[in-house]
Amino acid sequence: MKNIAVLLAGCGVYDGSEIHEAVLTLLTLSQAGVHYQCFAPNIEQMHVVNHLTGEVVQGVKRNVLEEAARIARGNIKATQALDIDKFDALIIPGGFGAAKNLCNFAIKGADCEVAPEVTGFIGAFRDAGKPVGFICISPVMIPKLYGAGAQGTIGTDEGTAAAFTAMGGEHHRACVDEIVVDEKRKIVSTPAYMLADSIAEAQSGIDKLVHKVLALA
Amino acid sequence: MKNIAVLLAGCGVYDGSEIHEAVLTLLTLSQAGVHYQCFAPNIEQMHVVNHLTGEVVQGVKRNVLEEAARIARGNIKATQALDIDKFDALIIPGGFGAAKNLCNFAIKGADCEVAPEVTGFIGAFRDAGKPVGFICISPVMIPKLYGAGAQGTIGTDEGTAAAFTAMGGEHHRACVDEIVVDEKRKIVSTPAYMLADSIAEAQSGIDKLVHKVLALA
Repeated sequence: MKNIAVLLAGCGVYDGSEIHEAVLTLLTLSQAGVHYQCFAPNIEQMHVVNHLTGEVVQGVKRNVLEEAARIARGNIKATQALDIDKFDALIIPGGFGAAKNLCNFAIKGADCEVAPEVTGFIGAFRDAGKPVGFICISPVMIPKLYGAGAQGTIGTDEGTAAAFTAMGGEHHRACVDEIVVDEKRKIVSTPAYMLADSIAEAQSGIDKLVHKVLALA
Repeated sequence: MKNIAVLLAGCGVYDGSEIHEAVLTLLTLSQAGVHYQCFAPNIEQMHVVNHLTGEVVQGVKRNVLEEAARIARGNIKATQALDIDKFDALIIPGGFGAAKNLCNFAIKGADCEVAPEVTGFIGAFRDAGKPVGFICISPVMIPKLYGAGAQGTIGTDEGTAAAFTAMGGEHHRACVDEIVVDEKRKIVSTPAYMLADSIAEAQSGIDKLVHKVLALA
């Protein structure tokens, strides 16, 4: 049975993993009859956002791994616990946490850096030639991790696409129900809530991404 | 277009709404082409649980409405904002938050009380003859809200079923992919993660529950 890693970035669209995207990823994996294991870096969140008001909560800290454990129902491991030989592929849901905790794109744009824990984690899949699926905003990490010419999509947002290109990536526009595949590097990406107006729309692209990642694995 | 209320209890299986159950509810509603609106009581959580360790975090407070907003991507209202005339039905996902924040079944068992904000909210649907779907552990509120003879399921757990019966309810055993329907009172329930070994299993029963609630609405 295939074994798929899912990298989470907290729990909540504004400061962690986008919850719908994460759960829809797990749903398609489960329905496909494969095994999955959630991971997250054991680091502090960039900040905590009150999701009712959209405002940053001052003086409060939360841990990415502990919050991501909510999505994983407690069954989650720290990124440093990865045994790459046991996994066939990786999928990374979006949400601002991907751009605030996994890397700092939300602050630095094209000058962003991927967190050390995350560089090593995703890099292990890249170096082993194992496919990686990037959802929503998480594809902004593709150029930094795969180098010049790596292909991906963040949907149709021109500013983010320009940053993707500035970092050396080859950006392809895509609709919410489409995926972009870099066959050579085994990278799959889909816009999800970069474009989705509903959870059903997000599901359409995520379902395709998961199945393509499984096909490449 | 039908308009369905979804009552959340926080964000996370051990102290709030079970995230998979909540998202799967929203997914089926969205795929069915109906509108939904999330609600939660504007009250403090009973406590905060570290989902990595399963332990209660001392000295930390979280608000049920603010945390539930994570699942709703910020689009959520407090229970007191309900305009019952605008809604056709209600669905309540499970998770310990349903038994800790919506009512205190987790502490008091058959002697539990439903929180005042929640009694009024669910009671508005009951009094208007509008269907309500209860998922996972949330059916423990059925006897308190609907009185003697009201039918529901919490799956196969004998202790919880005995408490359901002690409160005056008529308990029916059900498998993870089954629903129990009280046609007279327009109550639908399903065990979900009371029994599910995977998110795909939870989805099978939740999907049926949502479609039955929509059919009754």
